[in-house]
Amino acid sequence: MANKNVYFFGGGKAEGSAGMKTLLGGKGANLAEMTAVGVPVPPGFTITTEVCEYYFEHGKKYPPGLEKEVEEHLNRLETMMGKKLGDAKDPLLVSVRSGAAASLPGMMDTVLNLGMNDKAVEGLAELSGNPRFAWDSYRRFINMFGNVVMGVDHEHFEAQLERLKKKKKVELDTDLDAADLKEVVRLYKEVVRKHTNKSFPQKPIDQLWASINAVFGSWNNPRAVQYRKLSNISGLKGTAVNVQTMVFGNLGDDSGTGVCFSRDPATGQKVFYGEYLFNAQGEDVVAGIRTPMAIKTLAQKNKKIYQELVDVKDKLETHYKDMQDMEFTIQQGELFILQTRNGKRTGTAAVKIAVDMVKEGLIGEETAIQRVTAELLDQVFHPMIDPKARKSARPLAKGLNASPGAATGQIVFTAADAEQWVADGKKVLLVRKETSPEDIGGMHAAEGILTSTGGMTSHAAVVARGMGTPCVAGAKDAVVSGKVLMVKEKKFKQGDFLTIDGSTGEIYAGHLDLVQPKISGELQTFLSWTDKVRKQARRPGIAQVGFNIRTNADTPGDARRAREFGAEGIGLCRTEHMFFEEERIRIFREMIVAENPAAREKALKKLLPHQKKDFKGLFKAMDGLPVTIRLLDPPLHEFVPQTSAAIKELADIAGITVSRLKSKIESLHELNPMLGHRGCRLGVTYPEVYDMQVEAIISAAAEVAATGVKVLPEIMIPLIGTVKELEVLRENAEAVCERVLSRKKVKVKYLIGTMIEIPRAALLADEVAKVADFFSFGTNDLTQMTFGYSRDDVGTFLPFYIEHGILERDPFAQLDQVGVGQLVELGTKRGRSTNEKLKVGICGEHGGDPSSIDFCYRVGMDYVSCSPYRVPIARLAAAHAVVRNHKQ
Amino acid sequence: MANKNVYFFGGGKAEGSAGMKTLLGGKGANLAEMTAVGVPVPPGFTITTEVCEYYFEHGKKYPPGLEKEVEEHLNRLETMMGKKLGDAKDPLLVSVRSGAAASLPGMMDTVLNLGMNDKAVEGLAELSGNPRFAWDSYRRFINMFGNVVMGVDHEHFEAQLERLKKKKKVELDTDLDAADLKEVVRLYKEVVRKHTNKSFPQKPIDQLWASINAVFGSWNNPRAVQYRKLSNISGLKGTAVNVQTMVFGNLGDDSGTGVCFSRDPATGQKVFYGEYLFNAQGEDVVAGIRTPMAIKTLAQKNKKIYQELVDVKDKLETHYKDMQDMEFTIQQGELFILQTRNGKRTGTAAVKIAVDMVKEGLIGEETAIQRVTAELLDQVFHPMIDPKARKSARPLAKGLNASPGAATGQIVFTAADAEQWVADGKKVLLVRKETSPEDIGGMHAAEGILTSTGGMTSHAAVVARGMGTPCVAGAKDAVVSGKVLMVKEKKFKQGDFLTIDGSTGEIYAGHLDLVQPKISGELQTFLSWTDKVRKQARRPGIAQVGFNIRTNADTPGDARRAREFGAEGIGLCRTEHMFFEEERIRIFREMIVAENPAAREKALKKLLPHQKKDFKGLFKAMDGLPVTIRLLDPPLHEFVPQTSAAIKELADIAGITVSRLKSKIESLHELNPMLGHRGCRLGVTYPEVYDMQVEAIISAAAEVAATGVKVLPEIMIPLIGTVKELEVLRENAEAVCERVLSRKKVKVKYLIGTMIEIPRAALLADEVAKVADFFSFGTNDLTQMTFGYSRDDVGTFLPFYIEHGILERDPFAQLDQVGVGQLVELGTKRGRSTNEKLKVGICGEHGGDPSSIDFCYRVGMDYVSCSPYRVPIARLAAAHAVVRNHKQ
Repeated sequence: MANKNVYFFGGGKAEGSAGMKTLLGGKGANLAEMTAVGVPVPPGFTITTEVCEYYFEHGKKYPPGLEKEVEEHLNRLETMMGKKLGDAKDPLLVSVRSGAAASLPGMMDTVLNLGMNDKAVEGLAELSGNPRFAWDSYRRFINMFGNVVMGVDHEHFEAQLERLKKKKKVELDTDLDAADLKEVVRLYKEVVRKHTNKSFPQKPIDQLWASINAVFGSWNNPRAVQYRKLSNISGLKGTAVNVQTMVFGNLGDDSGTGVCFSRDPATGQKVFYGEYLFNAQGEDVVAGIRTPMAIKTLAQKNKKIYQELVDVKDKLETHYKDMQDMEFTIQQGELFILQTRNGKRTGTAAVKIAVDMVKEGLIGEETAIQRVTAELLDQVFHPMIDPKARKSARPLAKGLNASPGAATGQIVFTAADAEQWVADGKKVLLVRKETSPEDIGGMHAAEGILTSTGGMTSHAAVVARGMGTPCVAGAKDAVVSGKVLMVKEKKFKQGDFLTIDGSTGEIYAGHLDLVQPKISGELQTFLSWTDKVRKQARRPGIAQVGFNIRTNADTPGDARRAREFGAEGIGLCRTEHMFFEEERIRIFREMIVAENPAAREKALKKLLPHQKKDFKGLFKAMDGLPVTIRLLDPPLHEFVPQTSAAIKELADIAGITVSRLKSKIESLHELNPMLGHRGCRLGVTYPEVYDMQVEAIISAAAEVAATGVKVLPEIMIPLIGTVKELEVLRENAEAVCERVLSRKKVKVKYLIGTMIEIPRAALLADEVAKVADFFSFGTNDLTQMTFGYSRDDVGTFLPFYIEHGILERDPFAQLDQVGVGQLVELGTKRGRSTNEKLKVGICGEHGGDPSSIDFCYRVGMDYVSCSPYRVPIARLAAAHAVVRNHKQ
Repeated sequence: MANKNVYFFGGGKAEGSAGMKTLLGGKGANLAEMTAVGVPVPPGFTITTEVCEYYFEHGKKYPPGLEKEVEEHLNRLETMMGKKLGDAKDPLLVSVRSGAAASLPGMMDTVLNLGMNDKAVEGLAELSGNPRFAWDSYRRFINMFGNVVMGVDHEHFEAQLERLKKKKKVELDTDLDAADLKEVVRLYKEVVRKHTNKSFPQKPIDQLWASINAVFGSWNNPRAVQYRKLSNISGLKGTAVNVQTMVFGNLGDDSGTGVCFSRDPATGQKVFYGEYLFNAQGEDVVAGIRTPMAIKTLAQKNKKIYQELVDVKDKLETHYKDMQDMEFTIQQGELFILQTRNGKRTGTAAVKIAVDMVKEGLIGEETAIQRVTAELLDQVFHPMIDPKARKSARPLAKGLNASPGAATGQIVFTAADAEQWVADGKKVLLVRKETSPEDIGGMHAAEGILTSTGGMTSHAAVVARGMGTPCVAGAKDAVVSGKVLMVKEKKFKQGDFLTIDGSTGEIYAGHLDLVQPKISGELQTFLSWTDKVRKQARRPGIAQVGFNIRTNADTPGDARRAREFGAEGIGLCRTEHMFFEEERIRIFREMIVAENPAAREKALKKLLPHQKKDFKGLFKAMDGLPVTIRLLDPPLHEFVPQTSAAIKELADIAGITVSRLKSKIESLHELNPMLGHRGCRLGVTYPEVYDMQVEAIISAAAEVAATGVKVLPEIMIPLIGTVKELEVLRENAEAVCERVLSRKKVKVKYLIGTMIEIPRAALLADEVAKVADFFSFGTNDLTQMTFGYSRDDVGTFLPFYIEHGILERDPFAQLDQVGVGQLVELGTKRGRSTNEKLKVGICGEHGGDPSSIDFCYRVGMDYVSCSPYRVPIARLAAAHAVVRNHKQ
């Protein structure tokens, strides 16, 4: 316990400072800081958080001497202000507020207008020449003090007020005049007496101590305790109490109040921005009853005050080195700053401000990087619902924010319809229960996608993110049946308009205007700084310098786009996605239902040129950068035809009867396909499939290399669970590569590695790494198996789990660091323990999630890989990780 | 390199002994040992394994001085025998054989009859008075030496022999006379010359060194190397070479050969057992052309030799302290013992011999325990195919040995048919593609179960083991379609007879006689010894003394049976198995499709008395022993009706339309139910279900306790993946228990624990253990998720994996110690790190597997739990684990 328990601020001097947050709370420290730098802050004093700690540790007693210390500071305040609490002539009014080191918004108590009593009200009425204001202030004080300190329910006061308004036949509080409010004061005092058996305290010092007690007491009220628990806030001493002179903006036309920003929070432009109202209180500006005026107009109305305000904002921005959001009050021609804080801003503004401030010499590049969150940066790349349109619209329902950006259009219910309508010049949203690989065409055509089931890594979500198409997935309240969508009680038919926001998961009826993203000139500059930090990252025990961003791309187009966004390689090319084109799917199906290896090889031979062509495109697009290609992964039955026409067609191609084909298809059915015959298990049992794919990869690499392109192929074998699988498949792949390369007489360096997505592979990573050149953590599957959750089926319980706090968040959206993360960390460590040169990355959906990227950096990965549109975000998040972990 | 490279044995003395296996190989050490204890062994000498090591380390050169050493020993042998290698009058013949420290049966080379040449053959003919024997020995030697040492293909010799037989118009080799065989010798020598350009060596010492080289060389022949690799045999120096005097049982009627056992290997009775033939070689006894005579008849034929043999077998059994399997030869009235080894025996014999030998003071109880393997003990409890019937039958196909014992009967294809036919007095085998919970009645009725798909933990396998019904599962070659079974090309219709052996997985056409098990008096004694060892086990760091065996039992009947078999508690009662009775399944379905909590609770209220009744039965049956009851685990849709009649009926009960019910059933469908809405996820989202089950458990416990029964309920919550799930469910369960107990005014101590079957739960076991009284590893699910294998779908690749060595064994049958085992070990350790008193057990199918039981003991589990019929095996395996790990 320090000797000093109370800190004064006022008159340009303060005993505290911004660095004393722990002791004075955020608000107290900030008031002290502003005062000290010469900003006109209403004077006051702060009772420390240590007092709060003492208070609770000693059965709600204060440390000895505190009473005296507070009274001394009160005297000092009264002297400085030339007013006295409760004075009949010139009363001082103060506020008593909480303020802890961390923000607990609205969780603790506040008392305003303290010092008011039967005498002071008269003094204030005369002094201000505004009796209505005086009586209004008094009745508010009784209500607030009565409620917060004396425990009288707010509704009892409200009931009296309503009764009077009825009697007076008026509707608004503002319609009551001074005499009415005087009557209200009388009624309120009766309420207090009735419910507490006490009269309302008239002695200001009693009011003050009772309020201090109440504010300290509110630190441990149930909602504050709960909030700290939920927000993981711990280790604080308690709240401070701030006693501060009240100022009023509603004392006539030479008074006013407003909010202003040191730069434009929407665009980031360095212009003074804000709004204000004369003769008003802060709540009037927010309430929207009167229309506030732009801050610039203040220059005409009151040049002196305007100039003061400009000086203050310059001073505060320079002092805090960030864009400031300030509240001010003008009381009878005098300016007071009530609060300043770093202002909220849009993504565009965040980037511009960060870059401008570096240019202005205000901050360094590393600080600039930290000023823009991944969430903010993400806004820059996606259309948003026009804020004006959003204001007046109310979302119908909410699903998962599966792929960011807003989209609007007419709804259709099948992929074929989507393609048709778009061909007819319409804009559509594709609405499905869930999507499947056969829907790809329609998904491409649609402006946005809405599904009623599935999670953050459902097919719709993954593909939409890959395409950069907005998507709301797993909207429980949306029921799709046939060509009808029911959202709660509302019915939507094909052709009706909907708007979705994939960044928030919200669904709106009808068409809302969108704002298209503008890529500013500052963005490139900003991202280049993030790259600098990221590429210089050095971590103990890890040979490679830097932390790379790759992309998950299946087509040359995706690859080029990702490269433009800054991707430094392909971390995952899913070869199976190449099979969904009309012509190829036929051959692929022929391969699947082949009755013997010969028939299978015949079909594979037909597929080979298609795959090779794709790979050549990828290698060209990624000239000089590594390209990781995953061999066939999903269970074969995902590809089999569903309609009887398609089945008939395939039977003809395969030369078997329809019934034979049907039984073949039936035999491919699995009870738990996610845990079935897929991934390398296909490669082991049907080696000719992987052989064809490896041949396509390495021939493509050789042919492209021969034209002078630098190719760096990395062949990735999925779903390894035993070392032997990788040994066998590696041997097969090497044999094919050597055969092709010696035939073509070309040298191509290639790597062969594996995905770590089966828990057992992570556990045995030391053994696996002996036969792998690289590991890529497939954290989608790893999460599925470590949790025992099917990502396609979690819809039945995961939302409930998150809602009820069983899980803090969706582990498919954000890597579960304490559980799944253990396997990732252990897999990385054990892998490197037997293979120093092992490259390690991640290619699951988590590769684009900032907190997961931070984790990947900490466990020592060489790269993360994410969808093309996510690459810039990942670049920023990676830079954040480097800075945060102090390891460059 | 020791100075001594060659060890002599003969004349009642030996330079080596049984303890020198590493140096002399198993055979050499054993020959030395037998000689030393005075058993008449044909003399000879052993060249050490160190010579073999030197040979390969020095480019196939021998250590200096070896030649001299071998020749000295050869001289000593010739002197002892009074014969000389290659002697024209009285030639010595020797064998040259391999013999490493570990058995590599048939992998290395052997040369017999060495020392034979053109002169010796004449001497032998005269001396034996049996020219045919002499020439036959010579031609065999040329064939063998020519093949093994000189590399001439066996077929070239065979061709000449066949040509001669054709010419002579005879069919059998034995139809050739001495003159013919002399001609064969001539022809064979030509073969050698033709294929090697060398004449057949006549100098015996050359023959000897060439043979020694060949035998040493065979240590590194490809098949021996491969065999060692596959059998994980490593760290050996090489093979020894044994040069031993040949003896012959085919030198007339005073010669003979036989095999004998010191006790009856079928029954274990202490009677001399065996068979022999006069004037015959070892192969004649085995070949079955002549019928061997029982050993007892030798007493009449040659009392002296018989008495010698009895003395030898007594001596050897006393010496080796185990039942011996001996080969002997009588050469012209003189007895020689060629080999002795511990005899193979049936399960019944193994138990009897072990118990008898303890009574005889030959061995101690701990040794007796080690003499009976789990596999042998298992035989004792199950019917077997009569060995005589098996001899003449050939299995049609082989599936997985899913539940031990043999069964025979008429095949039926539906559970309903099985019940009907059995009601009609028939014995049936139930043949299914796979079984489902609806088949339980038919499975109970059938003698045995055969399925064409599914693995060792498929529904059929698990349920069959639980019932003690023989089962062959996943028989790939058996195709079931409609009421027809095709096994390879053979067709079986309903009513046809089949026989299956669930211990081997074999399937036989038709009816084979079975031998029913006889539980001997010795068994109880034997098992009581295993219990003694097991119950005294003390392990460092583990508070509990002993290692317990519990059982997985769902009904009072199972519980009683298991207790008779020695179970010390129930480790797993699957409550859902109680729901399949006609009346209950209706109510359960009503619960599943309930539209709201109220409707669900109504159905649950109806279920409560049924569950309570079951639990009371269990508690009574297990008076004084713990009973672990698992709350509802499987996904709900496993219980929904399939037929339209059943759907209609349920719709009526639930008071909803059929189409509404159908869509409800549809909504329960999951893509990967194993990873879906099941286990505690149901308990969290539908708390009323678990509340009912807990109420049933604790009310049952209270009511039974009130009658003086000692109840120890352990409530087990399945599928925990997050600590929070267990926290919430534990809190709910405790609330129900406290409510019930205070209402009933009874005190019952109960535990609440969890299964560890989700990898994440194992990883976070330290956190989970804070809210668990016990852990029970559910290694079926843990294996599924750690490997990413659906046990229902592995049929498509697991057999391939095992066949091709990707996996050594089915991880569902034997716990994968290196992978899944890591999670079990880590889960146990971490759990105990935060909860010292944590009870830990296993209740997966691995709880009955000997190697898995050993693992569970090593990681410090308190108990294993297995199906009732497996309990005695587990008691033995647990005792083995204790002894093996030296920790009592």
